[in-house]
Amino acid sequence: MPLAITMGDPCGIGPEIVARLFLDSTSAGCVVLGDVGVMRRAAKIVDPMLPVACLDTPADLAGVPVSCIPVIQVSGLDESLATLPWGQVNALAGASAARCIEAAVAMALESSISGIVTAPIHKEALAAGGSVFAGHTEMLQALAASAGQSPAPVRMMLANDELRTVLVTIHQSVRLAIDAIDVDSVLQTLRIAHHAAAGWGQANPRIAVAGLNPHAGEGGLFGDEEIKVISPAIARARAEGIDATGPFAPDTVFMRARNAPGHPGEFDIVVAMLHDHGLIPVKYLGVERGVNVTLGLPFTRTSPDHGTAFDIAGTGSASAASLAAAVEMARRLRDGMLSA
Amino acid sequence: MPLAITMGDPCGIGPEIVARLFLDSTSAGCVVLGDVGVMRRAAKIVDPMLPVACLDTPADLAGVPVSCIPVIQVSGLDESLATLPWGQVNALAGASAARCIEAAVAMALESSISGIVTAPIHKEALAAGGSVFAGHTEMLQALAASAGQSPAPVRMMLANDELRTVLVTIHQSVRLAIDAIDVDSVLQTLRIAHHAAAGWGQANPRIAVAGLNPHAGEGGLFGDEEIKVISPAIARARAEGIDATGPFAPDTVFMRARNAPGHPGEFDIVVAMLHDHGLIPVKYLGVERGVNVTLGLPFTRTSPDHGTAFDIAGTGSASAASLAAAVEMARRLRDGMLSA
Repeated sequence: MPLAITMGDPCGIGPEIVARLFLDSTSAGCVVLGDVGVMRRAAKIVDPMLPVACLDTPADLAGVPVSCIPVIQVSGLDESLATLPWGQVNALAGASAARCIEAAVAMALESSISGIVTAPIHKEALAAGGSVFAGHTEMLQALAASAGQSPAPVRMMLANDELRTVLVTIHQSVRLAIDAIDVDSVLQTLRIAHHAAAGWGQANPRIAVAGLNPHAGEGGLFGDEEIKVISPAIARARAEGIDATGPFAPDTVFMRARNAPGHPGEFDIVVAMLHDHGLIPVKYLGVERGVNVTLGLPFTRTSPDHGTAFDIAGTGSASAASLAAAVEMARRLRDGMLSA
Repeated sequence: MPLAITMGDPCGIGPEIVARLFLDSTSAGCVVLGDVGVMRRAAKIVDPMLPVACLDTPADLAGVPVSCIPVIQVSGLDESLATLPWGQVNALAGASAARCIEAAVAMALESSISGIVTAPIHKEALAAGGSVFAGHTEMLQALAASAGQSPAPVRMMLANDELRTVLVTIHQSVRLAIDAIDVDSVLQTLRIAHHAAAGWGQANPRIAVAGLNPHAGEGGLFGDEEIKVISPAIARARAEGIDATGPFAPDTVFMRARNAPGHPGEFDIVVAMLHDHGLIPVKYLGVERGVNVTLGLPFTRTSPDHGTAFDIAGTGSASAASLAAAVEMARRLRDGMLSA
């Protein structure tokens, strides 16, 4: 069954990096959900000879020749999308990006696609287009929940070849994030990470839990969240059979988990309390290698680890490396082939 | 003029890694401030043939043969230090470690040594020994201030070959750290970093300022510290001629500043709001390469980027790589030879 790639914000680099994927076999087994006009404009930027094929359903992919972009036209999109200026916040663009995500979720829930890879959207355009969601993760969670298929919360994982981090908190201020870190949110994260790992072929992952505070609180000297919240959550997870350990000092746990040639990682997953604790190390060696994965959904979902790059949108200079990594990650997640 | 190396906590790996330095020329131009008995015990662990020479003053170093550990006995240390068990918190050990730091600061302020490299101390032992300081940085700042030579605050820098980060906040909970981030503390950090860089040979460093919140606050959606505090501090610094830019999203600014073969860094220094924002990327590729530098003191001070490692103290297995990097960094800082 195909993977679906949503086109992302039409004014950003999404369409052109999606088009670039179809220049070679990286894109095998993928269909694009988006606007045919937008994808035609993007294809021209990447290679004037790259054709776009219009599909009615994902199942039609079998009949599409290679080196051709197979696009399913998402309904209800504005007709002007392919003429919008590059690199600007636009309400129509934001609304169309949201519409593609909705279409993808509907197809995933009815099992006509096997997973979703999302090209980047722009948060301001999304809001201008009328969406109430801060980003993909929040939107996907709400769409799955409203379909009655994902009552539990979801979590964001950032992963590359070396490191997988799952985040307890994401798109909020550090001040509000601290308030959101409680036994339930940490325990839920551990359960989601543990369960998701089984899905990708790792039955009993070694999960390290990073502390919130410097030195993981230094025994309470630098904050008590480790004592009052994180340690109790780890104890409860362990009682459920989850191999969770910590809390560890944030500054060294990612280095310890790093799995590189000559440096076997001590852990399979690191759970981080704050967005940037987890993302700084995954991105440090280059964003083109990082993939964003949503855990806890009833379907596979990945995305590249970068934004719409309005400053270079439409120039054809954007790299599709992270999107290609996201497609490859989605395949491995879907097929249960992501063991260390 | 010699660099002084303080022995650190006698029950940790400090003495043995200091001794290990003197097996080769890494230690050229260094004297040890500590306890002769402790250093003799440590020397035996590293190499039973490694002699210890007792010096009265740093100037005596000139007459000491190579492959010999030159130790200045710090006065007032307990006579039992060399018999204390390895790997345990001990008040006498903590007090002696503090005493060595005091002696080093006194010598640095009277210019009989050219800088200080500190072996690791243990925070609990330090407290048990009667010290009120959370660590080296706080103690050095207080000692310099009480001598009337450093009225301004100091800042901790973590550096390796690829990255230099200077921290606005260090040893406190994230919750308290947020409260401590104000225009003055950020501006002071920028001034200290800018001034220190001139000392190491970089007259107008490109300083990137990382935000506090995810996506640097996403225009105020995820916290307003960037708008109310960090941006105004950057503006004031720029008005003073400091090349400070930002605030940048914490998750990508360190990657952008990374200076590696084939990956020239966009910035010379990254100022980070939180301890672990700054330390996670410096440590990610291995703690043995990271060096801790105190900026803003009237003398050079570095230390290895690890602790007392009580679990392996006394076994002779500890690596002196980070200490050696700290010595090399101290030389380059002292000599104004640390330009990118």
